[in-house]
Amino acid sequence: MRHTISVLVENKFGVLTRVAGLFSGRGYNIDTLNVGPTQDPKLSRMSIVTRGDDATVEQIVKQLNKLVDVIEVQDFRDGEYVDRELVLVKVKTGSGNRAEVAQLAELFRAKIVDVQPQSLSIEITGNESKVEKFITLMKDFGIADITRTGKVALPRK
Amino acid sequence: MRHTISVLVENKFGVLTRVAGLFSGRGYNIDTLNVGPTQDPKLSRMSIVTRGDDATVEQIVKQLNKLVDVIEVQDFRDGEYVDRELVLVKVKTGSGNRAEVAQLAELFRAKIVDVQPQSLSIEITGNESKVEKFITLMKDFGIADITRTGKVALPRK
Repeated sequence: MRHTISVLVENKFGVLTRVAGLFSGRGYNIDTLNVGPTQDPKLSRMSIVTRGDDATVEQIVKQLNKLVDVIEVQDFRDGEYVDRELVLVKVKTGSGNRAEVAQLAELFRAKIVDVQPQSLSIEITGNESKVEKFITLMKDFGIADITRTGKVALPRK
Repeated sequence: MRHTISVLVENKFGVLTRVAGLFSGRGYNIDTLNVGPTQDPKLSRMSIVTRGDDATVEQIVKQLNKLVDVIEVQDFRDGEYVDRELVLVKVKTGSGNRAEVAQLAELFRAKIVDVQPQSLSIEITGNESKVEKFITLMKDFGIADITRTGKVALPRK
């Protein structure tokens, strides 16, 4: 089962290394991870998508809380949060199928951000199922390149 | 000066720790970092925004290339790439200023993703200057919570 964990950390050297090391050292899986600044310049927020049963994730949260420079750990559960991901994907297109790719992008409210003779670069945001569905459709045309931010989440309350 | 570096890595345990450790061990700054899957299940892509002069960034790229499990390192320069970031921001609003916040969101083509009695949660995507401008405007209302994916980038060619 997939979990999204949000970790508020002091914006200090080595925090990311310690968090990443906790996962790799104990064999916990990381599907995606991102870290960026918050409204407080002294703090950063990390969002981590990990896989495991409830007991494993509870362990991860406990271990994270023990780390120096970790201020707060939130384990998001279904329905309590809003989550989004951004993906940039470069799809192989020529004159024969550019219109079809552009139309699919429009149906998904994705944006075309670059046009080249042999490719279209598309930006799509959404929750996991929407993003995955779009990527699956694009695979039929051929994906030349892709870069994903990984999930970020905010509690609703 | 800010640089965006994209690192294609083998999807193996400990790669993230090694990359993060390289930055913290040598005192290189990380503004944002994210890692996610690619079209090839064996590979992940990391996007890192770092600060430093050209010589420092050249050193970083060289060191990254030496790491085990690093396949390719790209240092993006102005104009050669498309970059985007996604931010979820929860803005403090009551009946008095909700309309104003909603209108500003619309002007920035941001989306309102959650409405609560005391807040609006907004999703915005764009390049750095657009996203930063929106966050600055929202600070006047009060930011209750924010989570940023950090930049992702794709080469245009």
